[in-house]
Amino acid sequence: MKAFIAVAAMSLMLGAPALAEEKRGEKMAPRSPSVLSAEDIQSVAPALARFGSEVLIGDLWQRTELSRRDRSIVTVAILIARNQPAELKHNVEVALDNDVTAAEISEIVTHLAFYSGWPNAMAAVAVTKDIFVARGIGREQLAAASPELLPLNQAVENQRSTTVEQNFGAISPGLVKFTTQPLFLDLWQRPGLKPRDRSLVTVSALIAAGQSAQIGYHLNRAMDNGLTAQEAGEIVAHAAFYAGWPNAFSAVAVVSEVLRARGLAG
Amino acid sequence: MKAFIAVAAMSLMLGAPALAEEKRGEKMAPRSPSVLSAEDIQSVAPALARFGSEVLIGDLWQRTELSRRDRSIVTVAILIARNQPAELKHNVEVALDNDVTAAEISEIVTHLAFYSGWPNAMAAVAVTKDIFVARGIGREQLAAASPELLPLNQAVENQRSTTVEQNFGAISPGLVKFTTQPLFLDLWQRPGLKPRDRSLVTVSALIAAGQSAQIGYHLNRAMDNGLTAQEAGEIVAHAAFYAGWPNAFSAVAVVSEVLRARGLAG
Amino acid sequence: MKAFIAVAAMSLMLGAPALAEEKRGEKMAPRSPSVLSAEDIQSVAPALARFGSEVLIGDLWQRTELSRRDRSIVTVAILIARNQPAELKHNVEVALDNDVTAAEISEIVTHLAFYSGWPNAMAAVAVTKDIFVARGIGREQLAAASPELLPLNQAVENQRSTTVEQNFGAISPGLVKFTTQPLFLDLWQRPGLKPRDRSLVTVSALIAAGQSAQIGYHLNRAMDNGLTAQEAGEIVAHAAFYAGWPNAFSAVAVVSEVLRARGLAG
Repeated sequence: MKAFIAVAAMSLMLGAPALAEEKRGEKMAPRSPSVLSAEDIQSVAPALARFGSEVLIGDLWQRTELSRRDRSIVTVAILIARNQPAELKHNVEVALDNDVTAAEISEIVTHLAFYSGWPNAMAAVAVTKDIFVARGIGREQLAAASPELLPLNQAVENQRSTTVEQNFGAISPGLVKFTTQPLFLDLWQRPGLKPRDRSLVTVSALIAAGQSAQIGYHLNRAMDNGLTAQEAGEIVAHAAFYAGWPNAFSAVAVVSEVLRARGLAG
Repeated sequence: MKAFIAVAAMSLMLGAPALAEEKRGEKMAPRSPSVLSAEDIQSVAPALARFGSEVLIGDLWQRTELSRRDRSIVTVAILIARNQPAELKHNVEVALDNDVTAAEISEIVTHLAFYSGWPNAMAAVAVTKDIFVARGIGREQLAAASPELLPLNQAVENQRSTTVEQNFGAISPGLVKFTTQPLFLDLWQRPGLKPRDRSLVTVSALIAAGQSAQIGYHLNRAMDNGLTAQEAGEIVAHAAFYAGWPNAFSAVAVVSEVLRARGLAG
Repeated sequence: MKAFIAVAAMSLMLGAPALAEEKRGEKMAPRSPSVLSAEDIQSVAPALARFGSEVLIGDLWQRTELSRRDRSIVTVAILIARNQPAELKHNVEVALDNDVTAAEISEIVTHLAFYSGWPNAMAAVAVTKDIFVARGIGREQLAAASPELLPLNQAVENQRSTTVEQNFGAISPGLVKFTTQPLFLDLWQRPGLKPRDRSLVTVSALIAAGQSAQIGYHLNRAMDNGLTAQEAGEIVAHAAFYAGWPNAFSAVAVVSEVLRARGLAG
């Protein structure tokens, strides 16, 4: 009964007039938590349908600690990293409704070809191309294959490349080479995603894949480029739902270390 | 040749009269190790078909260190955690034949929405709903969305929530909040799965995802609720087949620590 | 524009005359980096199509630090370990074109049933059986289910089994038993893959799944059986593209330790 009321409440909350108002100001929460209908979810797990409407949509996506645009970026990155095309389809649609541009989606897929692997990006392409066709999004709306790159901070890059070369230059010259070019001298300098957003995508993918060891470097980079401590903490809360509690708890320990090292946590 | 004999032997072993007897007493081993037919497996890898019949069905599922009902719960949890819908379909059928109730399957899916992530649960819903329809399982057979919850052990919960709040309350207030409600005050208190089984599901999902760091807490909780040392060891053996040897070896080191700390291993 | 030139250049490079020459000598690079067409990739991410042609095919697969046959084995192992059937289909075709035999593909699938889990192997069977049918590959071309096994190095096996028994014999007798038989006394002794290649498959799957803790043992075993230091380093570079940079960086640290311990790195 409680679930029915909640669903009814949600559909009122997200109904036409409220939606119209939202369209003018705030971004939208997803109308539905899944590509599956509430009825399908209820037919297997009524409690899950309740958690989807009451908690996932009715609470998590309403929280202001992270913007809805950022939540969409985090969600899309997690789903590409975990290779879940069915829910990715749903959430690319939500992201486009939340003012993540097609060019940015394109850039996120490209970025995660490197951070989650080429096959994950191919699965994302397969899902996204149909959405782009359906929305009439053509190549002219996407980032160019070879745009003018952002100016490079040569000092930071020198430090990075020297460290990697010293550690692994004799072990895997190929890895060191490709990490410099195309990874850091090309991909990371592409203008299609703001550096803060590119780091947000990277951190989200690392949390989603349980790759805790590399979260620290990229979270610091994200915060150097404008991500706030509050946003960092809320990314973890969002990831708990989309990548599971264990990955969130592995990540929050690293976030805690980073924030303390930056003097941003008690 | 040996493989053909083994397959023939298996089909005799699992033939009608033996099956009828089993139905009255013990639970059944799966008739087949996969949604794929033995012929399909043989057409690619004859040895794999042999291992499937001789070892997976002919040995692992016959072992009494873990009941067949428990093996089904472990298998379903692993397949949801690793997002493998084709084999999940096969093993939800096996689980229902092994007296895991539809209500329990429903609860396992709901539980793993939190421990393996919402998208994994959605993939499990997509598979399970068709099985429920085919078996005529309606919502009246499932756990209610908001049932009366199990009584809470307030002392244990206070300790848990205090620790999490102290460690991460300033870092990710959202994660801390959602971990309390709905995770520990709602999901874990739902009566649709016995606490021992809920912990069995959690431990299985953690092993399957290689999340060793969090196995210890949940294995202790499982054993506090009745899981035996022998069962703990056999879960790892079962997981070796369904989640791969490397995950099993990462897990067995943690199981060893837990058992030794509880004075249950030499 | 640059992307179009690159694609044109690639199609010239890989065109008929060069190909004919390659067929006589070197193995082929894949004609395409994905089961998806270049047009599909460009419709979502023009830069990704450029990276696919310029870097993945135009550079990585051209490098001689690892043979194309080895690159195919590594790629197939990674895709089975990460359960990505769409790209696996493409790369099993490439592997067969690169003189990986059907019998070896069959053996890789069988091997990874143990190292990546039975369900991953079943997904690989589903993909591979159609390719075998289309190419007229019948069971007579595959390894027998129970062939005469390679001679066992009893001293090495005694050491392995004693260590595992001492560590985990009292914890999980089932895991210890199945690790001996069928894993080490049967699977690892099958003649269908050379020991060096079997270890190459294992190391690739471990890198792909982020299971760093177990790379060291199997990399040493691979090098004992003939894998060179240069090949070890290049496997990591190859895996960066197919399993993502974070897994490659976790792996390269272990490769570095192994090479230094063997006196093979500065």
